[in-house]
Amino acid sequence: MKDYSDATKRFLLAAKNAEIQALKQLSANCQLVTAVKDVIHQMQRERGISNIFLGSKGQRFATQRHDQIKISIDHEQSLRRRLKSLYLNGEASIGHMRLLSNITLALQGMDNLSLLRHKVEELRITPLQATQAYCRLIAGLLCVVFEAADVASDPAITRLLVALFNFMQGKEYAGQERAWGAIGFAETHFDSTLCDKLEQLQIAQKHSFSIFAEFANKEELDTWQAMEEGELLADLERFRGMIRQLADGSSIACEISEVWYDIATKRVDEMQRIEEHLTTRLLSAATQSVIDANANLENHKKQLHQLQTAPLVQSPLTMLFDPQMPGLKGSEDSEQTEINSAEPLSTHRSFYDLLRGQAAHIKRMATELDEAKRAITEQKVIDRAKLLIMQQWQISEDQAYRRLQKSAMEQNMKIADIANIVVKQVGR
Amino acid sequence: MKDYSDATKRFLLAAKNAEIQALKQLSANCQLVTAVKDVIHQMQRERGISNIFLGSKGQRFATQRHDQIKISIDHEQSLRRRLKSLYLNGEASIGHMRLLSNITLALQGMDNLSLLRHKVEELRITPLQATQAYCRLIAGLLCVVFEAADVASDPAITRLLVALFNFMQGKEYAGQERAWGAIGFAETHFDSTLCDKLEQLQIAQKHSFSIFAEFANKEELDTWQAMEEGELLADLERFRGMIRQLADGSSIACEISEVWYDIATKRVDEMQRIEEHLTTRLLSAATQSVIDANANLENHKKQLHQLQTAPLVQSPLTMLFDPQMPGLKGSEDSEQTEINSAEPLSTHRSFYDLLRGQAAHIKRMATELDEAKRAITEQKVIDRAKLLIMQQWQISEDQAYRRLQKSAMEQNMKIADIANIVVKQVGR
Repeated sequence: MKDYSDATKRFLLAAKNAEIQALKQLSANCQLVTAVKDVIHQMQRERGISNIFLGSKGQRFATQRHDQIKISIDHEQSLRRRLKSLYLNGEASIGHMRLLSNITLALQGMDNLSLLRHKVEELRITPLQATQAYCRLIAGLLCVVFEAADVASDPAITRLLVALFNFMQGKEYAGQERAWGAIGFAETHFDSTLCDKLEQLQIAQKHSFSIFAEFANKEELDTWQAMEEGELLADLERFRGMIRQLADGSSIACEISEVWYDIATKRVDEMQRIEEHLTTRLLSAATQSVIDANANLENHKKQLHQLQTAPLVQSPLTMLFDPQMPGLKGSEDSEQTEINSAEPLSTHRSFYDLLRGQAAHIKRMATELDEAKRAITEQKVIDRAKLLIMQQWQISEDQAYRRLQKSAMEQNMKIADIANIVVKQVGR
Repeated sequence: MKDYSDATKRFLLAAKNAEIQALKQLSANCQLVTAVKDVIHQMQRERGISNIFLGSKGQRFATQRHDQIKISIDHEQSLRRRLKSLYLNGEASIGHMRLLSNITLALQGMDNLSLLRHKVEELRITPLQATQAYCRLIAGLLCVVFEAADVASDPAITRLLVALFNFMQGKEYAGQERAWGAIGFAETHFDSTLCDKLEQLQIAQKHSFSIFAEFANKEELDTWQAMEEGELLADLERFRGMIRQLADGSSIACEISEVWYDIATKRVDEMQRIEEHLTTRLLSAATQSVIDANANLENHKKQLHQLQTAPLVQSPLTMLFDPQMPGLKGSEDSEQTEINSAEPLSTHRSFYDLLRGQAAHIKRMATELDEAKRAITEQKVIDRAKLLIMQQWQISEDQAYRRLQKSAMEQNMKIADIANIVVKQVGR
C-alpha cells in the first residue's frame, strides 16, 4: 500500500516551490536595497554641499554642487532602472504591498528633486528647509530598506538586512549631526536647544550602531571598532566637547564650520566601507539561498522518483502513528514536539521521512526568522509607543522618546520592554 | 510641472494590486479553513465512536461507526477537492510555504486514515492508540488553521481567524477530555495521574476559550455565555467533581461511561454552532475585502485619469516639503509622524494626496495587523519557551507548561510575558 496520495506529493513540491518564489522575491529586494544605499549616500553628500552653498549665499561649493548633482542623477537613474526591471515586469503580485507603497513614496520624492535643486540654485530656500527636504527623501528611502527587512523570509538574510538598515540609519543620524553642527557654526553660536538636538542625535547613533553590532560579522565589527578608535572620531569628539561648552551662547568664528564639516564628512564617507561590505555579503547570500533551494527541490524530485520505483514498504510510518507528532495532551508518547529530522525514521528513506524533513526545515526557518526579526519588532513597538505618547500628551517625537528612555532607566528595563508596556496599556 | 513620473504612478497601482492579490490569497485560505473545520468535527466524532467500539471489543457502535466513516469520507473528499482547486491550479507561487507544508502533513495523515480504520475494524489497536492517531491528524489540521491566521494580511480577518483557531483548539481539548474520561470509566477507576490530565485539559480549554472571547463578536459571546451557563455544562461539572473524588483510586461502574460520553458529546456538538457562525462571518468578510479593494483600485484609476486631464497645479505638495513626513530629527516641523489622510492637503486633490492616503491606509492596516497578531505571537512564544524548558530540564511538555504557569502565578505576570523572558534568556 502506498502511504501517500498524488495530491500530497504535489503539495510537498508546491511548498518547496513557494519557498523558492519567496527567496527569489527576497533576492530582488536585496538588489533594490543595494541600489537604495547608493542613492542615500549621494543624497547625503548633496545635502551637505547644498547646505554650504546656501549658507555662503552661493559663494562656495557651486562647482562641487554641480558635479555632485550629476553623480546623484546617475545613481538615481540606476535605481529607477533597477526598480522597473525588478518590480514592473508584467507579472502580477510581485512584491509586497508595504514595500511597494514605500517605494512609491520615495519615488515621488525623487520625482521632485529637480524642483528642490532649482530652489537651491536660485537661493529661494533656507539651508534648514533644504536640509529638511533631503532628510525626508532619505527617510523615505530608509523606509524601503526597513520594509525589505520586515518582509524577508530567510533568517540569515534578515539578520544582514537588520544590520544594514541600522548601520544606514546610524550613518544618517551622523549626517544630521553634521547638518545641525554646520547650522550652529554658520550662525556663530550654539544655544542649549541646539546642543540638546546634537546630543539626541549622538544617542540615536549609538542606539542604531549597537543593533548593527549585534547582527554584523567579525570583519565588519573589526572595521567598525577601528573606526571608533581612530583619529577621525577623536577629532569629532573634541568638536563635540567644544560645542557642549558653547551651550551658554558664547559666539564662535564661523570659519570653523568648514573644519567641522570636513571631519564629519570624512567620517560619514568612511562608513560607506562597512555598507559596501554588508551589501556584498547580502547579495551573495541572497543568490546562494535561491541556488540552494533549487538544488533541494531537485533532490526532493529525485528522491520521490526513487520512492516510486522502490519496492513497497509493508507498514510505513505515517504522521498518524509518529510518536514525535503532537497529539493527545497528557499521553506518554506525545511528549516530544520538536521534529527531529537528523536521521530517517525507517531503515530506508520513506515518503514520510522526506515530508518530515521538509516540515522540520520550514519550522526551523520560521523560528530563526522570528528571532532575527526581534530587532525589527522592537523598533516597531518603540515607534508605536512614541506615537501613542505623542498623541496622549501632545508632545514632540523627541520628547516622547526621552520619556521612554527615562522610564527605562528608572525601572532598569530595556526601552523596547517599556515601549511594549505602553502599547499594551494605552493602545487598547 | 507634473509632480509625479509614470513609474511612480505604476508603483502606486502595483501596491494596490499587491494588496488585492494578498486578499484573494487570504480569501482562498478562509475557504480552506472552513472545509478543515468540517473535517475536524467529523474526525472528533469518529474518534469518539471508534473509542467506544474498541472499548466494547466491537460490541457497541458498529453501525454508528460505519455511518460516521461514510460522513467523514464525504467531508474529506470535499476538503481534498477544495485544496486542489485553491492551491494546485497551475499558477506558481500561490500559497505560503508554511501553510503548504502544514497542508502536506495533514494530507499524509488523511492518506493513511483507511489503514487506521482497518486496524480499528479488526480490533488490532488499543482505544488509546486509536485516539492518539486521530488526535495527531486533528492537531495537523489545526496547524493549518493556525498558519492561515499567521499569514493573513487583513486585521479584521486575522481577528476572526484567531477567534476561530482558539475556539477550535478549545473544542479539541474538550474532545480530548471526553476521550480520557471515557478511558477512565472504561477502566472503572481514575488514578491521580488521570485526574491530573483531565484538570490540565480543563485549564487548556479555559485558556483557549478566553482568547476566543477576546476576539469574538457580541452574538458569538452571547451564544457562548448561554452555553457556559446551560444545563449541559452543569451536568459536566457534576461529572468533573465526581471524577476528582475518585482520584483515590476507588472503582466505579463502567456503565456510567456512556452517560459521561453522551454529555461530553452533546457539549462538543453544541460548540459547532459557534464554529459555523465564525466561519460564515469569515467567508463574508474575506469576500467583501476583495470587493472593497477592487473598488478602491478602480477609484484610484479614475482619480489618476482626472489628474491627467486637470489643469496643472503651480506648486503641488510633494513628500519633500510635507511637514507631516519624518525628516531631520529635532526640527520643529517634523514632529508629527502620523500621516493623517482625513482631508486632502491641497484645495483640490493632487497625486500626492492619493499617494499619502494609500500610504496611510497601508500603515494603519499594518499597525492593526500587528495588534491582531498579538495572540498568535504570544502562542508562538509560549510554544518556543515550552520547548526550551523541555530540552533544558528533560521534562515533558505538560511539565514545562506547568513550570511556566507556576512562575507566572508567583510573579503575578501573564504566562506569555514569562515565556518571553525564558526565550530571551535561554534562547540565545
